[in-house]
Parts: sequence; structure tokens; C-alpha cells
Amino acid sequence: MTRTGVVPKPQALLGPTQNGDRYELTSPTALPKAGGFLWNQQMMIQITCRGYATSQYMQPEPAKYAYAPNLEAKTFMQPEQNYYAHHPGRFVYIKDEEADELFSAPYEPVRAPVDRFIFSVGKSNISWIVEHLDIRVEMSFCIPTHDVAELWTIKVTNLSGRVRKVSVYPYFPIGYMSWMNQEAEYRSDLGGVVANSITPYQRASDYYKNKFLKDKTYFLCETPPVSWETMQQAFEGEGGLHCPTAVMEETLGNGDARYETPTAAVQYREILKPNEQREYRFLFGPALDDAEIRNMRSTYLSKDGFANAAKDYAAYMEKGQGSLKIETPDKDLDNFVNNWLPRQVYYHGDVNRLTTDPQTRNYMQDNMGMSYIKPDVTRKALLTALSQQEANGSMPDGILLTEGAELKYINQIPHTDHCIWLPVALEIYLAETADFAILDEKLTSANGDTYTVFERLCHAMDWLLKARDNRGLSFIAQGDWCDPMNMVGPKGIGVSGWLTVATGFALNLWANVCEQQGGSEIAAHYRAGAKDVNDCANKHFWDGNWFARGITDDNVLFGVKKDPEGRIWLNPQAWSILGGAADRDQIPKMLDAVDEHLTTPYGVAMFGPPFSKMREDVGRVTQKYPGQGENASVYNHAGIFYVHSLYSIGEKDRAYKLLRQMIPGPSNEDYIQRGQLPVYIPNYYRGAYREYPRTAGRSSQLFNTGTVSWAYRCFIEGLCGLKGDVMGLRVNPQLPSEWDGIKATRLFRGARFEVDVKKGDVREVKVKVDGKELEEPYVKDVKEGRVYKLDVVVPK
Amino acid sequence: MTRTGVVPKPQALLGPTQNGDRYELTSPTALPKAGGFLWNQQMMIQITCRGYATSQYMQPEPAKYAYAPNLEAKTFMQPEQNYYAHHPGRFVYIKDEEADELFSAPYEPVRAPVDRFIFSVGKSNISWIVEHLDIRVEMSFCIPTHDVAELWTIKVTNLSGRVRKVSVYPYFPIGYMSWMNQEAEYRSDLGGVVANSITPYQRASDYYKNKFLKDKTYFLCETPPVSWETMQQAFEGEGGLHCPTAVMEETLGNGDARYETPTAAVQYREILKPNEQREYRFLFGPALDDAEIRNMRSTYLSKDGFANAAKDYAAYMEKGQGSLKIETPDKDLDNFVNNWLPRQVYYHGDVNRLTTDPQTRNYMQDNMGMSYIKPDVTRKALLTALSQQEANGSMPDGILLTEGAELKYINQIPHTDHCIWLPVALEIYLAETADFAILDEKLTSANGDTYTVFERLCHAMDWLLKARDNRGLSFIAQGDWCDPMNMVGPKGIGVSGWLTVATGFALNLWANVCEQQGGSEIAAHYRAGAKDVNDCANKHFWDGNWFARGITDDNVLFGVKKDPEGRIWLNPQAWSILGGAADRDQIPKMLDAVDEHLTTPYGVAMFGPPFSKMREDVGRVTQKYPGQGENASVYNHAGIFYVHSLYSIGEKDRAYKLLRQMIPGPSNEDYIQRGQLPVYIPNYYRGAYREYPRTAGRSSQLFNTGTVSWAYRCFIEGLCGLKGDVMGLRVNPQLPSEWDGIKATRLFRGARFEVDVKKGDVREVKVKVDGKELEEPYVKDVKEGRVYKLDVVVPK
Repeated sequence: MTRTGVVPKPQALLGPTQNGDRYELTSPTALPKAGGFLWNQQMMIQITCRGYATSQYMQPEPAKYAYAPNLEAKTFMQPEQNYYAHHPGRFVYIKDEEADELFSAPYEPVRAPVDRFIFSVGKSNISWIVEHLDIRVEMSFCIPTHDVAELWTIKVTNLSGRVRKVSVYPYFPIGYMSWMNQEAEYRSDLGGVVANSITPYQRASDYYKNKFLKDKTYFLCETPPVSWETMQQAFEGEGGLHCPTAVMEETLGNGDARYETPTAAVQYREILKPNEQREYRFLFGPALDDAEIRNMRSTYLSKDGFANAAKDYAAYMEKGQGSLKIETPDKDLDNFVNNWLPRQVYYHGDVNRLTTDPQTRNYMQDNMGMSYIKPDVTRKALLTALSQQEANGSMPDGILLTEGAELKYINQIPHTDHCIWLPVALEIYLAETADFAILDEKLTSANGDTYTVFERLCHAMDWLLKARDNRGLSFIAQGDWCDPMNMVGPKGIGVSGWLTVATGFALNLWANVCEQQGGSEIAAHYRAGAKDVNDCANKHFWDGNWFARGITDDNVLFGVKKDPEGRIWLNPQAWSILGGAADRDQIPKMLDAVDEHLTTPYGVAMFGPPFSKMREDVGRVTQKYPGQGENASVYNHAGIFYVHSLYSIGEKDRAYKLLRQMIPGPSNEDYIQRGQLPVYIPNYYRGAYREYPRTAGRSSQLFNTGTVSWAYRCFIEGLCGLKGDVMGLRVNPQLPSEWDGIKATRLFRGARFEVDVKKGDVREVKVKVDGKELEEPYVKDVKEGRVYKLDVVVPK
Repeated sequence: MTRTGVVPKPQALLGPTQNGDRYELTSPTALPKAGGFLWNQQMMIQITCRGYATSQYMQPEPAKYAYAPNLEAKTFMQPEQNYYAHHPGRFVYIKDEEADELFSAPYEPVRAPVDRFIFSVGKSNISWIVEHLDIRVEMSFCIPTHDVAELWTIKVTNLSGRVRKVSVYPYFPIGYMSWMNQEAEYRSDLGGVVANSITPYQRASDYYKNKFLKDKTYFLCETPPVSWETMQQAFEGEGGLHCPTAVMEETLGNGDARYETPTAAVQYREILKPNEQREYRFLFGPALDDAEIRNMRSTYLSKDGFANAAKDYAAYMEKGQGSLKIETPDKDLDNFVNNWLPRQVYYHGDVNRLTTDPQTRNYMQDNMGMSYIKPDVTRKALLTALSQQEANGSMPDGILLTEGAELKYINQIPHTDHCIWLPVALEIYLAETADFAILDEKLTSANGDTYTVFERLCHAMDWLLKARDNRGLSFIAQGDWCDPMNMVGPKGIGVSGWLTVATGFALNLWANVCEQQGGSEIAAHYRAGAKDVNDCANKHFWDGNWFARGITDDNVLFGVKKDPEGRIWLNPQAWSILGGAADRDQIPKMLDAVDEHLTTPYGVAMFGPPFSKMREDVGRVTQKYPGQGENASVYNHAGIFYVHSLYSIGEKDRAYKLLRQMIPGPSNEDYIQRGQLPVYIPNYYRGAYREYPRTAGRSSQLFNTGTVSWAYRCFIEGLCGLKGDVMGLRVNPQLPSEWDGIKATRLFRGARFEVDVKKGDVREVKVKVDGKELEEPYVKDVKEGRVYKLDVVVPK
């Protein structure tokens, strides 16, 4: 038994080809961590081009059905996930019975240098074509819309023009399920491998919590295999996963696993005529009991079952299409904005990052994005969040979504920014829907008080005004937003530069709503509050060329010129522009300072210079994400706030450049640096461009990020300039200098706007609707169901 | 580059050879999980014959310096540990530069079928000899006595009779240190690879707890290498660990790791004349900072440093020699009892299983064993435990050993048996030392009360008498001892059959001490208590042939004839014999029932028949260990209680048979079944002999177990019959029928007893001291420093 070529040299990346709404990769070694992800409301699976997979489902807390070989810590999703031999994956070994040769698809674990390789990520399925030894293996999978399972199709075709004897071994490792007990066996009554485990518990009361957890993992075969193995060690043997001992034999050992690590490996022995093809279907997932397994089998495991599930799922994804299509000179950008960005926004709004206690700020921002896709979901989220408001008007650190959910991880650390996000999310929801009725909804919270949404927003804004020190600056406690500055204000004294100017922003947003509702007196109250906050910020945080980041418990101002590390932070600049703290004289200085200190080829860093060590009066800034702190990452969430602020002041070239940097590609060099297909925006690219150039730009591979709602907003409101407000749609496209025009289709309040933007000799934006020029670039009184053709001319 | 033979067939086990106090293994594939362990008071390392290692150290909670490739859960030591490609280990790759051939020592990761293999476990070091491609690799390591580090020596010898060009690559993977940050580089100023990480924290207050954790891992080379690699992925490349890409090149890449998984791989390129040898030394361990690394290097990393450390460590191990040496017809037994068993007892008493909150019952039993080795340690432990007694006389679930320690895991579950172990441990301490002064020690607890040890024991015994229901049976709450019967009594109603009869035992033991102290009235009080407890046990638990296990909250008696599963439990039988609940008529029935229901070729099961599923009124009996519950393991701790009870009634053949079964070997078949070298008693062998014969007998590979103190006690008091008491040493050897005699050396109160036991035509044990016959088999008035020669004749 030999593997053709022991160690393939990393192949050159042939270049991802762009094929409609799919992205393809033609080498498994060039971007080894590149992959795609699928989700439904109960599960998520991220899979790499090489076949390694990370999947989770909710019951209701995140759980696994395919595990690492050792006991994994329970944690939130980690960035830059490690993959290694024995990492969970989905593989097929192909053995040529005559030539005694072996390879595996898609690539792991054999790692044979195959003759042809295509990894293809679609919006509703992921597939591979792998050719080697004159055999083609096609693998693809999708997930159902309402269940937790993977639906795998594997096709094997003889390309050789002669009769071939091959064995096909799907190998789906199950891993270390539980230290309490685990076992696996082939169940001919169910038609597949069933592994069983016991969730550990120690307190008697935990038993009743855990009793209905899905402790079984099944791997069901539509066609019965000729042999199987369910024990990892027996399958692998001394050969190692690159050449498993069990595969050396004529048939697998048909063994069971009793506390040994379970796996699912089955064998099909085939004689294939020239061009003959075999097609297999498998179902992989978790279950409570045999009845559930039987039911899943009968629902899905057939040609029709797969076809129906795929159709349903595609329809489900269609619902996340979003409200913008663009045609610009940059086709890669178009593809991303038209297909992938709304999908990622949809994911966030649809499943809340698979957590039962989303951070309040995440929940609000993710749902802000959902306003463009399914505004009903946003409405419900706003009501859910506000019904958990504290009696004093503040918001809890996380919003509990299921019975029995608890605040975990970072949500146990007191943060002071949560109220900020209420008017931010509400603004976009109202802009998209004009559903002002939401403001009159009455909500009763757990403490028994009943207020309308309007009143609750007022309480939240009043709390923000109150949660300030005697200088008028906002307390930071152990953190605000996601700069992990957990040691600035633990004594309750330290204040936040960002939160102070963000308070100004929030108050102004809310004042706008108050005004729209005819409450000019109350609007004046919040505008006065905003002005006061901004004045205080200017008095204490303005450092000559930018706003400082904060003042510690011990009265140390930081994020200022004299700091050798962490000298300038992006957030205080972006939000002082948005909130009005920065005036016309200040803004150019700030933009120049950001250009000078924070820009990199991969985007704008969250702060700089990077911290090389702990600064004890500020807090470890690597607290949450590795790239974020000492390496001063290009943290896209901070970057996109800045982009939004740039569009708000007409800085269209700076804004577009940064937007474009967030989307990896299209050059090979850029892909290789970032290591990711352009199917999502990751939460960070590694920073510290000057200090660690080798790793700078690398993707975190983590697609959970508040960035995407804002990015979508920036494309809609900023680049395309098609922003809703009370009366209709305001039109103000901001094309970068190098573009002459774009086309866009915008769905808005049930109408469809087909927009053609051209540059022309105008001093202000001119808009024709169906050939008729408007007095101002503002389409009022939008009619549901109508198609508007807009011809827009913008200044050169 | 080829590996000689891709997949070695599992070789036959050539048989462990017994070489003084070392155990050797001549094949890496026959017992793949077999290994040994070393410890000092700060660290522990368990390493397998194939090179995989699990190491922990205290700072003060258990920590790692070599990690798995993914984020591991923090947990107590797991049984039947999984090993897999990328599991942490200590390896050396050898590349023949001319023939382009590769192997690794000891075996992983290349898994080449080497020409010669010897794995040798000693009491103070572990070593390998591996020969392949006419090159000999000798690897060995020890640890220092007072620091956390591994001291590795690697020798490479040219056996070929011609000049050879070889590269030697020590490869010590460091693994996924932290999701917060991790990095590694070669530091020429320190002479080795230094990896750095950051312990995650989120609350500001945790920073100050974590600040002084040893977040660095170093791998220091005495001789500077020609090249190195510190990034796992760069080292492994596409080749896989069995044939790393970096090893294919002339030199390693000298790369750094920035958030990539750190590793330590270095290269030496050598030209070796015939029979020429190179010797290398390396230091591997954790450190706080560069200064500590520098200091470790200068202290240890030299020929003299290694020699001194080895000498010190051997002396440290010598202190754990114990107080018994035997010569019996069974040489394997002698070797185990003379060398390995006291070492394991010493380990338990020395480091308390590397936890900061040992379970009270473990702490007492581990220290009971330490009475035979270092009774001062036992004394201190008794005082430590009693000073944490609750105001009501009960004992907490765990004893806190360090400032800031907390009750964790099982210690958060209310158990009701902890007081039992006080008189049990005290009995042996007093028997070995006659240090009755300990009873007058005054201890002030955290609640401010001050009592003598004597008074505290009385309070504990009174609490046991009180913690009973109106039938006089002991409440079980969520558990007693380590049968995880967590649903018998959570409502506070259910009672324990074992704990009831164990209370009888504890009360009687304490009554003996009271009597010795002249308190006959108080002794009578506790004897009456014991009698009452035993009467109640008989009334409610006697099931005709054995004692039941308990009665649930809902008044269901279980562990009785009518139960199809969990019908008979070992503990109630053993302890009713010890405590006096079982009378002469009952005992033979119980012994026969145990023989019938619980004996297996690998020892006696804890209960039977195994549970095949959850019994909700009793609790999942797989709660703590996989083999323990549904598989009804041969749980040695329960087995040894039973052995002790057998010796207490003169059942010497039954007792010896079970004792012998606890020690794996000496036959190949037995080794292969159990998968372990006979250097420790594991906490369990898998049970369910009838249900799962394939896996029955398999070792847990976990050397933490309360078994060993009792096993040592059984050899000393039972088999050799050399038990201390107030006045001296009682002599009552209980040889199995097939033996004619034994010799034993017993250290006791500073004297040395050289004992020659023979069977003879006597009706009672006859003892001559230095040739002079005693009236009764009882050596009184033992003189420190004296050597006693005892000739003992026991009935045939």
C-alpha cells in the first residue's frame, strides 16, 4: 500500500474562480484553513477545503456531535482555529484494490497530491471534486432547514477507460464524546453507525437538565456497506490516519467501541466499468434516541429526501437575500455585496451567533443589520432586549433568549455601553420600516415595571447621562464595547473617551426620534445632554490632534501623544465624528492622525502602536482576541465604525479604500496573506504590520462579527447613498474618485428602486424618477409594490 | 525520504523483563498505553512507552507546560487517556543524511518498526534504548526534587562500523498554550526555544491572580543546535508528523511562531565515526520569566547538574521506601511490594494527587498509608483536616491545602461519609507511632472554636450517630464514598447501607482509642452506639444472604436479591464484617454471594450485575468513572476494603487471591488484557466480564487511588501479620495455603524486624525473638535502633 508521493509541496494557488454566487479554490494546500459555513437556526458547520470541520448545535447551549480526540474546553468560538491530524472532519478514503494505492478526498488525512481539486463554497451547499488515480470523487453536503443533520452525497466515477476494483471508505470520526461513558456499534436495524455517550453530571439536579440532551451521534448509510469499524484505534491502527491499518485489510473489522473513542468508517467494494459511477448518501448528526434516528432516516435519507431538503434550504437562504444589488467597476466587490455580505448579516440576525445570552451590544447590532433583511426579526429583538431593561434604565450585559439561559464568559464582566446600542439599532429599524408604532409598545420587565418602548429609550438615555463623573465623562467600569480595557475603571472612577462621545451620538439619535414624534421639548433635553457630553469630551479628552481613549481610576489620561504604546485609538475618533464632538477644525487632524498611525495594507488598526506588554493601569488589551491587543489588530468592527463616520462627512475615497480592504482578495497574494475565501468578513485581520509583517493581514477565520451589519449599512447608505428616513428615501451616492458610475437595485418598504448613478457636471446630486427630475434628492411617499427607476447624477 | 516499512504489525510482547527495581518492555506496540510516572511535590509526569506524555504542575492549581493542540478542558485526571497524533510527547527524529531514511525514538511519531526497543521504567527515571538503521538512540529523563522541569539526556551511537552522516532532531511539541496569545522563538541568549503565552482573564481581579503564573515554556539545549523550528505547522508541513516537511530540508527553518501553535524542534548534524557517540542534554519546563529560565539553566543544564539532580531525586525516592520488604514464592509480588507499592503510597501522601482541595476521604486514606513511610506527614494531615471541622462536628467535603483554594468538582456535592475516615486514619497512625500526644493537640477552626484532637474525634463520631434517620440508618444525601449514588438521598431522606455499617466500624475504632486513653465510660458510649447502628443495619438491610446498599428517598430498598441490576454491592459486605454488623452465620453467606456474583479473572467487581441503563431512584452509577458504573468495574478501592475484611476474619486464601489480582501480570496474556506495566495499581480494571469480555480487565491507567494505602496495609497487617498496637508489634502471618513460608523485614518504631515465617505443626502462631520463644505472638516494648530476628511458625 503506497501513497503516491509522500509529501506534496505546497502548490501555487491557481486562483479562486468566481462562478456566480459560489467561490472555488483549486488547491488544498495554498489556503489550508479556507472554508465555508452553513447554518440553520439550530446548528452551524464550518468546514475547511481540506475536510476538517467544526460544528455546533443548540440544545439549548452549544453542543457537539463530532468531537476532538481529547476533552475539549467549552468555550465561545475561537479565532484562527487549529487543525491537526485527528481534528474532526469528513473524509473518504479510496483504495485501488489492484494497484494497492490509496488517497483520500477531499485531501486529509492522506494528503496525496491529487490530480485535480476543486473546493466550491455555495450559499446553501459546499462541495468538492477530487480526481486521482483516474478516479473522480465528488463530495457535497447541505443541511436541512429545521433539523440538526448533515446530508452528504458522495459520487465515485471511474475515469480510466478500464474496469476498476475499488473500495470506498467514508470516514467520519466522532471523537471523544464524554469521559463518563462512550460507545459505538453498527446498527443494522438503523442502517448505520450509532455512537452513544453520557453527559457527565454530578449534582442530582443536573441529571434532570441533561436527561434530554442528544447524547447519540449517528452516521446512517442509504446503501448498506460491506463492512464497518466503529472504534478509532482499530480503524487507524499502527498505520496512522494517512494509511489506516484497517484499510489495509480486505474488509474492515466490524468492531464495536466500548469506552474507546468512537468513529464511523464504512466500506463499499465496487467493480466499476469505464465511466461508471456510484452514488452514496449519508446522514450525520446527533439524536436523543433510536426513534429520532429512525425518523431522521425516513425523513431525509433518500434521493427525494435530499432533494427536498436542498430545495427547502435554498429557499431559506433566499429569504436572506437582503435589499441591495450593485453593479460597479469592481466585480469582486459586487459579488461579495450581492451574495455574501447579506448572507452573513442574515446569519447573525437569524441565529444570534448560536448563543443563548448574546451580548446586548451584539444583539442590537446584529439585529440592526437584520432590518435590511427581515425587519420583523429586528422588531422582536428590540422588544426582547428592552423587556430585560433594569429598573434604573441601564441594560444587562447580555440578553437571555431561552428559559434557563445564564450570562456567561464576558457577560459576567460589568460593561457600561449597552444603552448606546438601543437608539443605534432603532434608527435603522425605523429608517427601513417607518414602524413608529413600535414606540408605543408596552413592555413589562422582570422587575414588574411597565413602560412603552419610547419611555424605555428615554430611561436608557437618562441612565447614560447619569452614569458620568463630576467632569461629565462616562464611567467605563471593567469595559465598554470590545476594547478589553478591563482595568481602566474597576474602582468605579475611570472614564471612557469613546463612551463619552458615543453617548453624544446616542443622545442625538434619540433626540431625532423624539422630534419626529413631536416631542420637541424632550428632544431639546437630549440635544442639550449631547452638547454637554461633547463639551466635556472636548475639555478632557482632546489631545491636540485626536481624542484620548480614557482616564483611569488613578486619573491617568491615556491614548494620547505621550504614550509610547496605545497612543491613538480608532473608536474615539470615529464616534466623535458621528456624535458631533469633533468640529470642522478637529476632523482633518484626526483623519491625518489615523492615516499616519493606524493604516495598514489590510485595513485600519484598532489602535497603535501595539502594546508589547501589559499596561496595568489600562488592562490587558489582548483580553478577548489574540490579534486585538498586543498585536493591535485590524479589528474590522472598529474599522467599519470609522468607515461609517467617513461617509457621514463625505470622505468617500478614504471610506471606500477601507471598505475594500475588509473583503479579502481578489489578488492571489492577498488571499495567501489572509488565508480566507471571500465569503465572509472575519472579525479581524492580524495587525502589528510594522512589528510582525509575516503574519499581518492574516484572517481570524471567525465569521461572528458586528462588522457585517455596519458594512452592509455603509454600502447601502454610504457608497450607494440610498438611506431611508421618516418620509422616504434620501439619495446621495458617494462613489470613489476612480469610478464613473454604478448601478444598484434597492428594495425599500416593499418598493424596488432601480438606480443608475453617473458622475456628471453637477454641483449637487440630481435625481430623476422615471425620467422626471426631483427638486431635492429625496424620494418621498414610497409606494409598496412599485418599481422606481432612478437616474442619479453626482458631482465629479 | 522513506520510512522503513509503513505500518508495523503489532509485535508480540516479548515479555517484560524484571531487572531489579525496573520494569522493561520490549515492544512499543503490544502495550501502547503502558508507561511510568515520576513526581515531585510540584509536578507529575506520566509517559507512555511510545513517547506520549501527560504532565501537570501546581501553581497552585494544576497547570501545563506542554499542551494538546486544541483547547483542553480543565479537569481532574481522566482514566484511559486517549493518545493520538499530535498528543503531547517527547520525541527524537533521526535522519540518515545519506540513505535519506528516517525514524523516530522512542516510537512515535514515525512508528517505524525498529530493530530493538527497550522501554525501562525505574523508580527515579525512565529510559529507552531504540536501535534502527544501525544507529542506537538512548533517551532518558528524570526530574529534579524541588523544581518543575524535565532533565533529558539523549545519546546517539553509530553501530554500523562505517562513517555516518546523521541529523538528530529532538522534537518537544508545546501545543496550544492559550487562545489569548501564544508565541515562540529561539533565544540564543538563553540557548533554546522559549514559548510565551498569556493566561486568559476577563475580570480585572483575575489579572492579579494570574500575573505570576508561569506562562512560558522553555526547551533549553546544552549544545547549541545548527537549526531550529518553533512553529508546529512549519515543522510538520504537508508531510505530517510521521514525515515532517521541515525534516526533509537540509536544515530547519529557524522560524518564529506568532499565535501559531508553538513547538520546540532543533537539529544537530553529525558525522559519526564507527562506534562514535554524541550525548545531548535538554531542559524542558515552565517559567515565569527569563531570569527563572537563566537560573534553571545554570542550576541544571550540565553533566554535573544532571548528575546532582539525579542523585538528589534518587535520595528523595529512597525516603519513600516504606517499612516492609518481603521474600515470598512469588517474585513478581515481592518486587511490586518491595519497590512499587510503597512508591505509589508515598506519591499519594507526598503530593495529595496534585490537588489543592483533596476530598476529605482521600486525604485521610492517602495519609493513612503515609503512616508507614513518613508518619510526620500523616500527623500534620490529621491536624490540618481536623482544623477544618465544621461547628456541628461534621467534616467538609474537601480539605483546603493552599491559600485561595476552593472546593471543586465532586467536592461541591454533599457527601456524608467524611467523618468515617478520621478514626480509620488515626488508628494506623497510632499503631505505627504510638504518638498518643496527638490526641491532646488543641486546634482552633475557622469558626473560632478550639478543641483537642480527642474532642474533635468525639464530635465527629457524635455527628455520625446523629446523622441518622428515625430507623437509626445513616443519611446518604448525594453520596457516600465513591459509589456515585447521587440520587438515593438528595431529599435528605434516603439512607446508606454501607455508611450505616461503616459508622459501626468507625465508632468501634474510636471506642478502642478511648479505652486506651482510660476513658472507659466514653468508650462504652461509642460501643453502645456501634451496637445500635449495627442492630439497625441488620434490621433494615439484611437481605437473607447479604446486606443491601441503601434505601432511597422514596423508601425503595436496593442492592437486594430482587434487583435485576445492581443486585449486590461489595462495600456493605466488607464493612459489615469490619464493623461487626455481620455475625458468624451471616459471613459465610456473604462470602459465597460475593464469589458467585462479583468475582472475575481480574478481581472482584464493585457491584453486579452491571446497570445497562439509568436507574433514576438510585443515580447513574457511571457518574465518576466509566468502568465503575454501567460496566460495574473491578474498582480496586472497593476490592481492597474487601481484602482487608477477609484478613480480619482469617480468610487468607480468598484475600491473597484478590490481592494478587490487583497487580497486573506476570503472564503476557494478563499484561495484554490489562495494558499496563506492574509499576502501580490502577484505580480500576474494566468490569462487566460477562457482558463485555473483550474489554474486561483493561487498566484505567490512572494511578491516583485510595487502594494503595489499604493494599500496603493488607500486606503488612494481613499477609505478613506484623501489626503495631499500643504496646508493640502483634505477629499473625496469614500465608496462602500454597506457600510454605516467607521472609519479611519490617521497620517499626525505629526498630528493624527480620522475620522468617514457616509453616509448621502448630495450632497457634509461635514466635521466637532472637531464638527465644514468646508466650504470645506479640513483641512488646520495642527498642528504637534494635534489630529483632523473629522466627515465626504458623499453622499449616
